[in-house]
Parts: sequence; C-alpha cells; structure tokens
Amino acid sequence: MTFDLTFIGHIETPFQSLGDCPNNVQADGPRCDIVLGSRFAQGLLGLETGQTILVLYWLEGVDRNLLIQHRGGRSDSIPRGVFALRSPHRPNPIAAARVQIEAITDGRVKVRGMDCLNGTRLLDIKPDTK
Amino acid sequence: MTFDLTFIGHIETPFQSLGDCPNNVQADGPRCDIVLGSRFAQGLLGLETGQTILVLYWLEGVDRNLLIQHRGGRSDSIPRGVFALRSPHRPNPIAAARVQIEAITDGRVKVRGMDCLNGTRLLDIKPDTK
Repeated sequence: MTFDLTFIGHIETPFQSLGDCPNNVQADGPRCDIVLGSRFAQGLLGLETGQTILVLYWLEGVDRNLLIQHRGGRSDSIPRGVFALRSPHRPNPIAAARVQIEAITDGRVKVRGMDCLNGTRLLDIKPDTK
Repeated sequence: MTFDLTFIGHIETPFQSLGDCPNNVQADGPRCDIVLGSRFAQGLLGLETGQTILVLYWLEGVDRNLLIQHRGGRSDSIPRGVFALRSPHRPNPIAAARVQIEAITDGRVKVRGMDCLNGTRLLDIKPDTK
C-alpha cells in the first residue's frame, strides 16, 4: 500500500558510507545535527536542552524482505526474527533513535551519536516517554 | 513524496472510537494484542516474555498540518510545536509505544495499555534500547 510520507528535514552526521555507520546510537558518539526544513522549524517550539527525544528517520537501500536475520550480519550468530533485532533491513525501514538535546538553534537540534548516513531523511521528533 | 509502507498486521484494543482512546500508553492499561499478518509472524522469533518493545503504528484521520498545538487540545494551555508533543496530529502520523511483552502465541504479542483504536495498522516492532 502506498502512503504519503512528508520528509520534514534531514540529519547531518560524519558518516558518508554505510560501512562508517555504527550499529546503534551511541550516547557518547560524535556531534550530529537534526535539521528541520524551513516550513517545519516552528514545530520545535517548547523542546528544551537536556530533554530526551525520539527521532524517527527513513533508511535507504535496505532489504525489506529479510524476516529472519543474523545479528550484526554474523553468520555464526543465532538466527532471529527482524522484530527481535534493530537491523535496518525491515519491512518498513523506519529507524528510531532516543537522544538527548544538547542545543537548539535556527531549526537545528544538536545531539550526539546518531547511527545513520549523512543526509538521512527525517520523519518525526517526539518527546520521549518513560 | 509517496513511499510504500507495508502494513505487517494490526492492533486489537478495547477502543472503538477516538473518544475512548487514552492520551498515552498506560503500563497498567487494558490487555491488547499486537497481531502479525501470517507472512510476518516468523519475524517474532527471538522476542521473549518480559522484554520491552517499541511498537510503531499508523494513525488514521489526523490533521497533518498543525505545527503549533495546545497540549491535550486544551485552548488554555501554552501553545507548543508538534515535535514537543505526543499529539496524533503530526506531519507523519506514525505513533510509537514502548510496552512490555506479557506473552507471545500464534503471531500475537500480548501487551497492556496501547492508546490506539481497535484495528490500528501495525508498521514495526523493535526491541527497546536503553
């Protein structure tokens, strides 16, 4: 089924190839910017430095049909279902990262340790819940 | 931009109208079933009772253009940006709920306290991260 997703911005990371990307978000990783498109920047009103957010983003170039996989792609690991893994290869390649806001300026949310390619397209930001 | 989302199943809750739905997930809420389509049930392999998962699902009938909103729809509250709220009205109506698995049987993941309508379409399940 086809649905209309609105890309609301992009994510700037130091990672220029998939091989550079870490397997998961790292709290002490490099600085990254979550950049809202000009139309969407007003939607940041009320977010604050120190707050934890859930960031949703769209992963490109993945295999959407791998229902059983090996963790980290290691063939000697126990096979698991895709829904028991954080693998980017999933029926809907929507990634979710929980990160803490270090600063917000001019439609840019500064965080650390995103795990995605530079230029990854942004779908949503939500305040984190416990 | 139009993207192809694959609905992998649905969520069974006691809520038959939007007015019945609680504002957020409730750990002690009513029992709900996350039901995988037959093609996708094998993707649950390795998930365990007691584990916390992040569930992504698609919200219908929302306003995708409300960038500034009042929390809980109360006009006397301070206006906030959509990305500082968990409101269902957002540019991409993808909801995220963190819930604990109570049991898994026959492609059904039993949890408590989902906040969505009965029959809500399921996009993804991921193991939760700290």
